[in-house]
Amino acid sequence: MIAIIAGGTGSVKLVRGLARLQDAAVIANVGDNIWLHGLYVCPDVDTVVYGLGGMLDEERGWGVKGDTFSFLDQAKKSGVDAWFALGDRDLAMHVLRTQMLARGRTLTQVTAHFAKAYGIRSRILPASDDETFTIISTDAGDMHLQEFWVKNACRPKVKGVRYSGIKSARATSQVLDAIKSADRIVIAPGNPVSSIGPTLAIKGVKKALARRRKDVVAVSPLIGRQAVSGPAVKYMATLGIEASPAGVAEFYSDVAGSVVIDSRDAGTSARIRRLGVEVHETNITMRTRSDEVRLGRYLLRKSAN
Amino acid sequence: MIAIIAGGTGSVKLVRGLARLQDAAVIANVGDNIWLHGLYVCPDVDTVVYGLGGMLDEERGWGVKGDTFSFLDQAKKSGVDAWFALGDRDLAMHVLRTQMLARGRTLTQVTAHFAKAYGIRSRILPASDDETFTIISTDAGDMHLQEFWVKNACRPKVKGVRYSGIKSARATSQVLDAIKSADRIVIAPGNPVSSIGPTLAIKGVKKALARRRKDVVAVSPLIGRQAVSGPAVKYMATLGIEASPAGVAEFYSDVAGSVVIDSRDAGTSARIRRLGVEVHETNITMRTRSDEVRLGRYLLRKSAN
Repeated sequence: MIAIIAGGTGSVKLVRGLARLQDAAVIANVGDNIWLHGLYVCPDVDTVVYGLGGMLDEERGWGVKGDTFSFLDQAKKSGVDAWFALGDRDLAMHVLRTQMLARGRTLTQVTAHFAKAYGIRSRILPASDDETFTIISTDAGDMHLQEFWVKNACRPKVKGVRYSGIKSARATSQVLDAIKSADRIVIAPGNPVSSIGPTLAIKGVKKALARRRKDVVAVSPLIGRQAVSGPAVKYMATLGIEASPAGVAEFYSDVAGSVVIDSRDAGTSARIRRLGVEVHETNITMRTRSDEVRLGRYLLRKSAN
Repeated sequence: MIAIIAGGTGSVKLVRGLARLQDAAVIANVGDNIWLHGLYVCPDVDTVVYGLGGMLDEERGWGVKGDTFSFLDQAKKSGVDAWFALGDRDLAMHVLRTQMLARGRTLTQVTAHFAKAYGIRSRILPASDDETFTIISTDAGDMHLQEFWVKNACRPKVKGVRYSGIKSARATSQVLDAIKSADRIVIAPGNPVSSIGPTLAIKGVKKALARRRKDVVAVSPLIGRQAVSGPAVKYMATLGIEASPAGVAEFYSDVAGSVVIDSRDAGTSARIRRLGVEVHETNITMRTRSDEVRLGRYLLRKSAN
């Protein structure tokens, strides 16, 4: 069994590739969860669900393929600030999940319900059943990650990032068990601050990963200084993380014994090894399904060494 | 100002006709409200809102014109019994309303918000801000009106009808004020049991109407023994109401000093008059917008006598 720490649209391709090859437990970021219109929206969890369920909108990288946006249009006509693009199919997830949570089921249970309904064989495990939100401090004030990214289009100047509620958030037993019992653990390519960082910041996760350090491999979300997708670079600098494969390797060095970087970044490998982190170089770009499986195979082979 | 007691798809045509002619307060049935997927759905209130907002789906008689049903389809795929046809635009109403109610606003305030957003000049007043549900007792057990009508397609044998929560439900001050201060009051053509009855059953409404009896006119929802729309006849018999214009007149005789029946039912007028109820005969079929205004004009003229 392989455990994958995932978050954001960047992760889902590798998650899909690995899930085709092996029994997988996907530990999904909950730091970008947000309450919208009274509904509990979990973008990263849902991206994994839709990705593995074969219904992800591939072009946008989020939401359901072929979705309509009638709800959103009507909400705007109803005098409400509807700034987050909730599709109508996507809304089924949010409405039904909110009801199930209100009835006392955990986010883990709710996610398992949908995974089963959509015929997904991998386990999808929200990193925590508790609420923790990624808050971006900017020159326009503090705001939720989604508010910064979607509503304000990343325009305000970032001054810092914090995870609200993180002190009382607990990793689920399923997550800790998956980390403990997995043959190998992959940190998928995702923003270290906003997609992977919130999971690592949850009490117990870092310690559990550190114990498995030699079996943990992190895949760089950067090629050179460019994010493969998303606004990774913007947040990294503010947290003092160098926006480079070496910066990522250093950020993960306590928990990941090895990293996979793009062949084009081979020049940085010696520097990474000096951090005590093993390096593998390969083509990490995933454009097609066979790219996803190819990188997945590479990871299984390398981490089996 | 005219007050209109309305409920169901049958009422909305006359509501629209009257609202074109005069300042109107529409008192809408809340007895068919229902909690679905954690959302508070108010079909009759919404039919009035959509009707007056020019966005009602005229063919179906409910929901929003040109709506999509992606949410519903996805909910079904998500392993949930989604038997009530919630359109995606319609869903905006339910989601946003549920959130506003959770934040402590009343159904009256929420309805006013939407009416304003949709440019509606008439006031739309839910009969009560409290929850009261029309329950149909059948040979398959007790069920909510919508469950009987939509989920079970009116198949179970009806044994009785009751309004749960009706003892603690209160008419709003806005409703009682509208009845008190209106120049005339129209009971729109709607099912006496399931569309109008729940409003009359709310404490205070019948008494307030009885005080205005000579200014209250009820429009028959039946032509002969056939409902103009909906399953009126089915419920009426079980409550001992004769399914005929005379039966309707008798049911309303405590509160309505006059009724309007179809010219084809003129043969029954003498019998109605013996109940102490004045009768007006005209063409009550409304197929077009000008039919709606024609019947509206007729009512204003007759009730001004």
